[in-house]
Amino acid sequence: MFINQEDAIRPSLKGKRIALAFFENSTRTRFSFEIAARNLGAQTLNFSASSSSLSKGESMIDTIRNLEAMRVDAFIIRHPSSGSAEMIGKSTDKHVINAGDGSREHPTQALLDIFTLREYFGSLEGIKVMILGDILHSRVARSNIFGLTTLGAEVAVCGPATLLPVDTSRLGIRIFSQLDEALGWADAAIVLRLQLERATGGYLPSLQDYSFTFGLTDERLEKIKKHLPVLHPGPINREIEISGNVADRIQPPGFSQSMLLEQVTNGVAVRTAVLELLISPQPDT
Amino acid sequence: MFINQEDAIRPSLKGKRIALAFFENSTRTRFSFEIAARNLGAQTLNFSASSSSLSKGESMIDTIRNLEAMRVDAFIIRHPSSGSAEMIGKSTDKHVINAGDGSREHPTQALLDIFTLREYFGSLEGIKVMILGDILHSRVARSNIFGLTTLGAEVAVCGPATLLPVDTSRLGIRIFSQLDEALGWADAAIVLRLQLERATGGYLPSLQDYSFTFGLTDERLEKIKKHLPVLHPGPINREIEISGNVADRIQPPGFSQSMLLEQVTNGVAVRTAVLELLISPQPDT
Amino acid sequence: MFINQEDAIRPSLKGKRIALAFFENSTRTRFSFEIAARNLGAQTLNFSASSSSLSKGESMIDTIRNLEAMRVDAFIIRHPSSGSAEMIGKSTDKHVINAGDGSREHPTQALLDIFTLREYFGSLEGIKVMILGDILHSRVARSNIFGLTTLGAEVAVCGPATLLPVDTSRLGIRIFSQLDEALGWADAAIVLRLQLERATGGYLPSLQDYSFTFGLTDERLEKIKKHLPVLHPGPINREIEISGNVADRIQPPGFSQSMLLEQVTNGVAVRTAVLELLISPQPDT
Repeated sequence: MFINQEDAIRPSLKGKRIALAFFENSTRTRFSFEIAARNLGAQTLNFSASSSSLSKGESMIDTIRNLEAMRVDAFIIRHPSSGSAEMIGKSTDKHVINAGDGSREHPTQALLDIFTLREYFGSLEGIKVMILGDILHSRVARSNIFGLTTLGAEVAVCGPATLLPVDTSRLGIRIFSQLDEALGWADAAIVLRLQLERATGGYLPSLQDYSFTFGLTDERLEKIKKHLPVLHPGPINREIEISGNVADRIQPPGFSQSMLLEQVTNGVAVRTAVLELLISPQPDT
Repeated sequence: MFINQEDAIRPSLKGKRIALAFFENSTRTRFSFEIAARNLGAQTLNFSASSSSLSKGESMIDTIRNLEAMRVDAFIIRHPSSGSAEMIGKSTDKHVINAGDGSREHPTQALLDIFTLREYFGSLEGIKVMILGDILHSRVARSNIFGLTTLGAEVAVCGPATLLPVDTSRLGIRIFSQLDEALGWADAAIVLRLQLERATGGYLPSLQDYSFTFGLTDERLEKIKKHLPVLHPGPINREIEISGNVADRIQPPGFSQSMLLEQVTNGVAVRTAVLELLISPQPDT
Repeated sequence: MFINQEDAIRPSLKGKRIALAFFENSTRTRFSFEIAARNLGAQTLNFSASSSSLSKGESMIDTIRNLEAMRVDAFIIRHPSSGSAEMIGKSTDKHVINAGDGSREHPTQALLDIFTLREYFGSLEGIKVMILGDILHSRVARSNIFGLTTLGAEVAVCGPATLLPVDTSRLGIRIFSQLDEALGWADAAIVLRLQLERATGGYLPSLQDYSFTFGLTDERLEKIKKHLPVLHPGPINREIEISGNVADRIQPPGFSQSMLLEQVTNGVAVRTAVLELLISPQPDT
């Protein structure tokens, strides 16, 4: 319950200090966490790699230990290296939240995607969710697969063979190589951002080929004649992995409903909840 | 009226969230708005192009829509492209304040210049204001011409022919090609910053020539024997468009009075007023 | 006394505006001051050279005067040029705190080092403090020499001849060219960060030679058989001026005790005190 409806703020983290350590560029994730932290009355410290002592060659762990010595209560970490948040978690007693580590995990993105799907469907039990794009390098895909299957959803992935992980069998998910077939199966679609450098890295013949084969467009959706909620973690590449029409249409008529901005709004709520549950003193349960 | 004189803060924007989206470097305008927003109790989000998803190729409109989905109540936009703030204004229901768009407009700068002149003269009715420098590329000149003429002042511009707009007749203003003549006419002068790259862009033979012909110096002012208030939007190029003596002399004796720091102080007050009038819930009028 | 133990905040600087003007990269000093300022309820304005009008060629003094016109109550200055904070101090009536100017002084670092040593020893009277490394370029060394000798400690420096100042006799301090001898003399050691570019600037034959001759390691410390507190201003170069073992060992057994993180914690306290004593309205004494 908010102490003041006008402010929409409840100061459950008053006096807590949260460091936002973003070693990669980010708009929505950083702002989303920053708004969440301030909603709860916490002090935020914005740390970016470029203006810090990391540019003097200080190790990441030494930087974190120094911040800890300034009485920081929690770290929110975005880092290009897989496993970095876990490594930091092992070197500090403070709370560490992974805001995306390399191509490994992005748990709060999955939580907000799952929250968005749950609001749409009521329950995820038996719901078929198709993740489309570069699954191999996607921390968003990985976290969503773990979260969705845990909550009873069925998950499939679809994308070029060069951008699928080799261990999909172990993940307990289906694979589609044809987008039409995948859309026919799915109740919902999560479209991933295509890293444009994949086209020059030997993974794709060209962006046009990718777009033609795996881009989500109205033409594709018209064939399946289902009302499909479409999610995307952003930022989008318009007319590459998703057409502008599909990304922008949030109302019927049409065969899809864009959840993109709904995801962003839910992201603040979900991250507020994560911060409060993790950092706020809890009664014993 | 302030609720607490010691704090000089009145929380009329408490619970409001204002995004400062500066796509160009800025010291005074950004800080001025930031102080204004905090004076009113608003939350500010600092967004700079370099550390954002714009560097991943996201469109400006998509970035703004995402911020909007995080419940931002107002956007303050500084952008190198003319028309960008207007374009953003058309794509969101939230408040959009233009903090300078390309060579088009800089309305809050004009408001603070006008406030400064009004405090000096009492009324602007019939006051002759001369704007000196690169009128063609100046958003400050354009906004001041609109504002000053609306309030009854007479406006003239003075500068090299290559840096004057072609449509001055439509703007209803006078043109002087000789600085001495312009100073003889004027009751007040607004000196514009010279973009130093103009000298290499074919607009000027050299900076020295510009300075010799259009630089505002004590020698020039002595000839006219009037007490002239001098404004400049800053940052200044000392000894190019304005001499250090003229920029720094805020007290008589002398033929001019520098309003430069007064402008900066007034800028915070004017922007505080703009934010409150625009964003704060108003009684019906 | 804190008004609210939970928050650890006392708003003695409520309504005060503090500009953090960091013209050099910094993690710990900037955050330390920022936390200190917020602990006291002050508003902070973060100013970095790269995103400011300095990149448009505005002079440092003009930038400061503009901030002053926005009613900034104090400036915290970090700048690569020696004497810059003093120069700013002469051009404004507001409070100016030197957070490190070139190779000249870093007074709050010395205050926190001294506070840390005083907590350890009780009193500094007669305590022998050895400063190890690049004394010539070190603002930390210079401020510590002034502070420590004022409080009755004896100070010695140790380092390669090329990195010692020529005026050590005037500073009233001892010089050691052998680290073992210096350690035998000392009650405490302050190890300085080695600027890695010294190795290529003609000051050192190589980093390996420096490390072998002046690096503080367990092997060195074992020889002297004393319990020595070790300080370092950070960020550290592990295995160059200090071994990881020495930097990380904060508990006995062992011949040294790392004060590094203690220094960081004390830094926030010391800077909070500096800001309050300097800026807060004081009763006449």
